[in-house]
Amino acid sequence: MNENNNIVLGANQYGKAEVRLVKITRDTERHEIEDLNVTSQLRGDFLAAHLEGDNAHVVATDTQKNTVYAFARAGVGSPEAFLLRLGEHFTSEFAWVSGGRWAAEQYKWDRIEAHGQAHNHAFVRNGQEVRTAVVVKDGPNTQVISGLADLTVLKSTQSGFEGYPVDKYTTLAPTNDRILATDVAARWRFNPAAVAEVDFNKSYDDVKSLLLEGFTENYSTALQQTLFDMGKKVLVAHPEIDEIKFSMPNKHHFVVDLSPFGLDNPNEVFFAADRPYGLIEATVLREDASDAGNAWDGIAGFC
Amino acid sequence: MNENNNIVLGANQYGKAEVRLVKITRDTERHEIEDLNVTSQLRGDFLAAHLEGDNAHVVATDTQKNTVYAFARAGVGSPEAFLLRLGEHFTSEFAWVSGGRWAAEQYKWDRIEAHGQAHNHAFVRNGQEVRTAVVVKDGPNTQVISGLADLTVLKSTQSGFEGYPVDKYTTLAPTNDRILATDVAARWRFNPAAVAEVDFNKSYDDVKSLLLEGFTENYSTALQQTLFDMGKKVLVAHPEIDEIKFSMPNKHHFVVDLSPFGLDNPNEVFFAADRPYGLIEATVLREDASDAGNAWDGIAGFC
Amino acid sequence: MNENNNIVLGANQYGKAEVRLVKITRDTERHEIEDLNVTSQLRGDFLAAHLEGDNAHVVATDTQKNTVYAFARAGVGSPEAFLLRLGEHFTSEFAWVSGGRWAAEQYKWDRIEAHGQAHNHAFVRNGQEVRTAVVVKDGPNTQVISGLADLTVLKSTQSGFEGYPVDKYTTLAPTNDRILATDVAARWRFNPAAVAEVDFNKSYDDVKSLLLEGFTENYSTALQQTLFDMGKKVLVAHPEIDEIKFSMPNKHHFVVDLSPFGLDNPNEVFFAADRPYGLIEATVLREDASDAGNAWDGIAGFC
Amino acid sequence: MNENNNIVLGANQYGKAEVRLVKITRDTERHEIEDLNVTSQLRGDFLAAHLEGDNAHVVATDTQKNTVYAFARAGVGSPEAFLLRLGEHFTSEFAWVSGGRWAAEQYKWDRIEAHGQAHNHAFVRNGQEVRTAVVVKDGPNTQVISGLADLTVLKSTQSGFEGYPVDKYTTLAPTNDRILATDVAARWRFNPAAVAEVDFNKSYDDVKSLLLEGFTENYSTALQQTLFDMGKKVLVAHPEIDEIKFSMPNKHHFVVDLSPFGLDNPNEVFFAADRPYGLIEATVLREDASDAGNAWDGIAGFC
Repeated sequence: MNENNNIVLGANQYGKAEVRLVKITRDTERHEIEDLNVTSQLRGDFLAAHLEGDNAHVVATDTQKNTVYAFARAGVGSPEAFLLRLGEHFTSEFAWVSGGRWAAEQYKWDRIEAHGQAHNHAFVRNGQEVRTAVVVKDGPNTQVISGLADLTVLKSTQSGFEGYPVDKYTTLAPTNDRILATDVAARWRFNPAAVAEVDFNKSYDDVKSLLLEGFTENYSTALQQTLFDMGKKVLVAHPEIDEIKFSMPNKHHFVVDLSPFGLDNPNEVFFAADRPYGLIEATVLREDASDAGNAWDGIAGFC
Repeated sequence: MNENNNIVLGANQYGKAEVRLVKITRDTERHEIEDLNVTSQLRGDFLAAHLEGDNAHVVATDTQKNTVYAFARAGVGSPEAFLLRLGEHFTSEFAWVSGGRWAAEQYKWDRIEAHGQAHNHAFVRNGQEVRTAVVVKDGPNTQVISGLADLTVLKSTQSGFEGYPVDKYTTLAPTNDRILATDVAARWRFNPAAVAEVDFNKSYDDVKSLLLEGFTENYSTALQQTLFDMGKKVLVAHPEIDEIKFSMPNKHHFVVDLSPFGLDNPNEVFFAADRPYGLIEATVLREDASDAGNAWDGIAGFC
Repeated sequence: MNENNNIVLGANQYGKAEVRLVKITRDTERHEIEDLNVTSQLRGDFLAAHLEGDNAHVVATDTQKNTVYAFARAGVGSPEAFLLRLGEHFTSEFAWVSGGRWAAEQYKWDRIEAHGQAHNHAFVRNGQEVRTAVVVKDGPNTQVISGLADLTVLKSTQSGFEGYPVDKYTTLAPTNDRILATDVAARWRFNPAAVAEVDFNKSYDDVKSLLLEGFTENYSTALQQTLFDMGKKVLVAHPEIDEIKFSMPNKHHFVVDLSPFGLDNPNEVFFAADRPYGLIEATVLREDASDAGNAWDGIAGFC
Repeated sequence: MNENNNIVLGANQYGKAEVRLVKITRDTERHEIEDLNVTSQLRGDFLAAHLEGDNAHVVATDTQKNTVYAFARAGVGSPEAFLLRLGEHFTSEFAWVSGGRWAAEQYKWDRIEAHGQAHNHAFVRNGQEVRTAVVVKDGPNTQVISGLADLTVLKSTQSGFEGYPVDKYTTLAPTNDRILATDVAARWRFNPAAVAEVDFNKSYDDVKSLLLEGFTENYSTALQQTLFDMGKKVLVAHPEIDEIKFSMPNKHHFVVDLSPFGLDNPNEVFFAADRPYGLIEATVLREDASDAGNAWDGIAGFC
């Protein structure tokens, strides 16, 4: 922070957001596709730009965009690996860049099945969820956070909500059989010491499977309990992950009262409401988790 | 149309839009889920409501909503079959309702794979495309239009664009190897005489497969040619379908010029642009197609 | 339509969509801004492109985009006037282009008030509504449709809904005091013979004012009645307009039942619901309105 | 945090999100409207819910929603004041609720001008920006953060970008006359000691005016400099505000090259790009600002 009549510049970062990168690998007839949305933001000594309009330190956001595309020429591999390469470049190339934040979304494509086989170069977007990755560098420290968003899941039974406190504003009736539905957003942070050994694509697929399994396994007394189960499953199976955070809406499905029409409704016909919705956020972590530093700053909805 | 100082009421319809309906069938431990967004709109004699504020004919939109939920108690089956039931009800129940338009989107859910098997009551939303259905009734005539939207596909080669006219505003360079990408939106109209025999769910799955295959099969000289191929494939295989309309963006993927950075780019690194995009719309139909009447009115982007 | 084993090409159009154009007029220190989203689509003889992959007639969508920007160099003026120029160009320049559809959205900017005066070159986006325009050419015929969308209005009283039919699915209670809220989407078509004389910017401002006034004036027995009042006001004041179409949601605001908490609620605390919503669509027109031809095709939600 | 085989529960919060509240004050014929989207999240001892499925502490999110509506019966006043009342209620009513986070968006409505005067009970939504408010309680500490989002502004001149470092990935040409456009998102935190005295509505209007003025005043060498100017202006005028954070896209407007068409383009015709965009984020604060605690956690894009 630096002075200006007692009013100073605090934390800051800047860069290019949402660089839409599609990489086709076409070494053989069987093409591969990687589809990402990349954001690069630099941190360091940018005081003169803010206070004096001196851009000598301001690596143009256009340059950051160019770098993303140039680096992709050698391949992406995984969003995490790609962001690590970008971060290493910017912090080593420019003396005043002491850190930064690099983030990506990745969209999955499946091969089109045509005439009974998976096509070599024709793809259909999967759309089940969005994969996310964040790399935060702060001087010598590097944090990697993988994640996913918009993974919409639903259980049509084996969920209830009972035993909650009743005050003067409580009108909700308890139930031991309801629909439980949510859009899973999860972010998991790796132990920095383990990052070099991680196969991020394999790790991602496995964590996603564990989250889905965790969602299905037990009767859910509340989304909080299910969330903890899901997170614990991931940490038990993945010693290289130190913590996992969730932000999950409780997407209400209300049983429609059909009695005015002379009909029963044994949990068969539901109104799927938009707003309001429950919102459950929590962290599951190891007691001896590494220090996260500022890795979680600026990620919405992960307390 | 009726007079009011020479200013009259023209075409009109009204109803309840976006009734979010989730139907769980739970006769056995293996639950089924149907997830729809239903719109009901009535047409007929509603003149007095518009000109005199007399609501005697105005079946409340709330009543239309209730009817959607009540009818779902007996099952949905397919969006087309469900809309046909709704349309039949409203036009037979109220003398002044001479027709209407009933529409639905359906969202697909897959069973979660957990511990090596497909779960009985836990689902994950598929997200590959949205299924659509429209039923239009106009007196004795009933039209059924099935469709899909947001089916995003991409070919990483076997597409070009050459031989187009050059005028003073033309700067585009021809190419015989580019990415072809689009979000398929298609709507197909059944021959009214054939509707009673159609298995709409089976038909839908088959048409979707044909569209995907049609997208992959030939070198594409332009999206127009690919569109026609896709449509023809559907009509050849499905005699009960009279016409199919497409509205497809040409989602541009620009090869990034990496030469300033001393790198080549043999169609490997692309910038996926948002706007503007090409927009290709066309109808493929039988020469002796049945009369569509007003079935296509009000559907955006299908000329 | 042309043959291909009995399967033929029907109606079709293609072009470039959503060309984002910002035009700054800076002849004096007091700059002017025009901010548009332009779509150009051509119709005519494009059979060979669809059936044979022959692009000799396919004016590139990239060329259409270039033309939009080149034509903007001489000024925009109004979206309608700009689209008329584009349409005239494409239909006269290419023998096989017999018509087309040109559409635009325009976004309004206000001058920033700073130090007590309206700034010369700093603007803040208004956001109250989106202005729309469509020009459709079909051989010698030209249609112009102006419009607006997303004009959100609300009356906190002077609205009710009573006297509607009651059937077995009716549970709604009548009311003579409710909130009436909607997003006005309206499109008005000019008499082709009058188009040459219209000042489209002045006309637009006046129609918008009349729509707002029409919304306020009378007790509303239903949105249908209010819609007709709004449309009639426009047609009475503007003889050059032949018809106006509306698509308006009835955005429900439900009085929250506070009685469980020992509180009354005399229409003061409301839940604003998202879905479902009512949807009221109607046309108000002159008895002797000119023929619209295919001008309304492909506009969603205007029956 | 509590133990479970070394895997423990970390930071967590839960509640009801996006409670859509419209409050009409109708003591006189001149109605007032307040339109909010309220989120309530509780923090405290919720360990048993996560680990054991014991809901004895879980104040239902439905109860939180009811409380929002019940509290609105006595009026809203300002989003900040309303959230403070909610926070005080939940933390005093339930022994195990030690804190929480309450947030709101507020949407502005203008009176419709009809027949030359502002209407008593008919309103049109303003749409210029969204007002935001957050209250965070953590034991005895209470933080209030006001803000706004989506305030879209543009300068058609008096902006440039020059003097930036050039590396091997730099291709951008310097300019001293470009369009500067952004969507202002700003959040300002009050000194906790001053909160009791603040008139939040008056403060909001004044800060918004200062931000708009700050945007207009100086030649902008980069958005960073303009951002700092805007923030400093607010802090100088408002001693009760300790810091202000910005997250602002640099919305690129590219001068279209019209030379292939024989036309010049002296900064008159622009392509407004969607993605990628620059993204500039920074904090402006007092050297002796109060401790923010965890007040900023979970707000996206404010580093």
